[in-house]
Amino acid sequence: MEEVKNTRVMFKDYIQGYPKVSDMVVTSDTTICLEIPDNIVDQILTKNLYLSCDPYMRGRMNRTLEQIYTTSFIPGRVMSGYGVVKVIETTHPDFKKGDLIWGLTNWEEYSLITNPTKSLIKIQDTNVPLSYYTGILGMPGMTAYAGFYEICKPKKGDKVFVSAASGAVGQIVGQLAKLFGCYVVGSAGSNEKVDLLKNKIGFDEAFNYKEEPDLDAALKRYFPDSIDIYFENVGGKMLDAVLYNMSVHGRIAVCGMVSQYNLNPYDGIQNLIYLILKCIRMEGFLVTDYYHLYPEFLATMLPLIQQGKITYVEDTVEGIENAPAALVGLFSGKNVGKQVVLIARDN
Amino acid sequence: MEEVKNTRVMFKDYIQGYPKVSDMVVTSDTTICLEIPDNIVDQILTKNLYLSCDPYMRGRMNRTLEQIYTTSFIPGRVMSGYGVVKVIETTHPDFKKGDLIWGLTNWEEYSLITNPTKSLIKIQDTNVPLSYYTGILGMPGMTAYAGFYEICKPKKGDKVFVSAASGAVGQIVGQLAKLFGCYVVGSAGSNEKVDLLKNKIGFDEAFNYKEEPDLDAALKRYFPDSIDIYFENVGGKMLDAVLYNMSVHGRIAVCGMVSQYNLNPYDGIQNLIYLILKCIRMEGFLVTDYYHLYPEFLATMLPLIQQGKITYVEDTVEGIENAPAALVGLFSGKNVGKQVVLIARDN
Repeated sequence: MEEVKNTRVMFKDYIQGYPKVSDMVVTSDTTICLEIPDNIVDQILTKNLYLSCDPYMRGRMNRTLEQIYTTSFIPGRVMSGYGVVKVIETTHPDFKKGDLIWGLTNWEEYSLITNPTKSLIKIQDTNVPLSYYTGILGMPGMTAYAGFYEICKPKKGDKVFVSAASGAVGQIVGQLAKLFGCYVVGSAGSNEKVDLLKNKIGFDEAFNYKEEPDLDAALKRYFPDSIDIYFENVGGKMLDAVLYNMSVHGRIAVCGMVSQYNLNPYDGIQNLIYLILKCIRMEGFLVTDYYHLYPEFLATMLPLIQQGKITYVEDTVEGIENAPAALVGLFSGKNVGKQVVLIARDN
Repeated sequence: MEEVKNTRVMFKDYIQGYPKVSDMVVTSDTTICLEIPDNIVDQILTKNLYLSCDPYMRGRMNRTLEQIYTTSFIPGRVMSGYGVVKVIETTHPDFKKGDLIWGLTNWEEYSLITNPTKSLIKIQDTNVPLSYYTGILGMPGMTAYAGFYEICKPKKGDKVFVSAASGAVGQIVGQLAKLFGCYVVGSAGSNEKVDLLKNKIGFDEAFNYKEEPDLDAALKRYFPDSIDIYFENVGGKMLDAVLYNMSVHGRIAVCGMVSQYNLNPYDGIQNLIYLILKCIRMEGFLVTDYYHLYPEFLATMLPLIQQGKITYVEDTVEGIENAPAALVGLFSGKNVGKQVVLIARDN
């Protein structure tokens, strides 16, 4: 049986504060057999092509985790996350050799996956970059779609504000909102990202929050008549400023709070009284509640992508050895667009 | 034409921090003519029977007010609020002498009201204490009803927590929730109120938040399996503790934040990240959006009251000269039950 080297990213130990590259260890010490023994049923062996770096993974580096759809990483064990993988061996009747699938895999070159139907979805359409299934056609895309349509319940003409707007989710929300007939403004953390938002992704306006000493004034500049929908990806001071600038009957979809994940205690939010004064609905959600919409989502998104009506900016690093730095970079906004790690090309 | 003394409560000037009795002036300097001149059309002259003291009135003592359904008091002018009044003269075709009505009136013995159809509702059923139309059958009752059914969207068996539970709104929410088949716990600020909640109003459990050094521990004692619905009347530290103890898919109806109205800046709330982790909907509302439900509300509440299935605790002071102290008392929790000021009996 053929044994090959299997480079892996191991989780060192639970952390507090900002993650560092040294909280993970890349090791090439282990090998993997590229065949599945005949007596092992219902497994697949995958070659991992793309790994996805997502902000929610910071929570998995905590000892205790209250997220309802995932678990903490285990110290000394391989890390895991979303990815695009190719089946190279299978004893599972639902998968055949060569299948391309996306979903949960390990941070390693090859993975032996038990129970693959639970966490992996077959890729039907390969007329788009495969990496898109870690982003616009995967978990972040589904998050943007469910958050915008199901939580924000948009109306044509709504004034929409998106934070972390050039990120994996934000850039999709902004484009869906534009296509829906909304006025859309995004915030991001560099002038390069602001430029992307305005000139490539198609936001009406965008601003660099790091250059705004007064977020309230910045929001009033772009929303003199208040914000109807806020798609919340950052939390903290931005949320406080937004609450003060919301419209009556405004809606806030709380998708993420990336500015808070490394803090203890969290920032205090002082303007919640505006929830009453402006009759605002503020709703947190997890994409896991919405995967039943995935077929409808694909049917919407694929044509938009193929007709060039929606674009997607990715920030791709090559090589599994660069995965830890890519993940860590999310929390200082180093990535420009969706952060992907290319492990192997599909060949 | 008969002129009578008309004692009034005047608003002195905009305030910051906690209101004081001295922020208002009771004056008997003015008289009012108890007839309406023939050439003045569409007015009513009312004898004010009950005035209602409500926490939202604190906001009207600020120079700037962002509440969408009311305005700030005007310095040097008479105060206003909800009340129960009797028509003693009328030139409006929709009202006749002797009509009992509830709604917005002035803080004075007699009021001349223009545009009465905009702000006053005729009382059809007088088989209940008239003061109830400032409480369980008026604005607070409608608030409880809309907040519980429309915002909380309860399910039988839900575990419900109500803060300021013996107040004008809280005691109704708790009883509606019990009748709906929920487990209901309330918090209040004295042992007398806790006793009322448990032994008269029918909450399953209640606790005195002032005697709980650890609100998280208190909530875990009564909700070992988490809170499905929180009816928010207080804000601040209690909200933070509740967020940490909510169920997945929990709902928070944000009705009031009485602990915050006199603070500047407001307390910071640190646990909003649980909105995401637990997929919580947190929704502010104002009763003014729900008055179209008033007929349905009355049809529900009147039989419940008349059959003794729901009770209502009022804290009544007599005499308009005592209205300022009654209003001020709301913000230290001096009132036990709904705070009403009796101005005159219906005779």
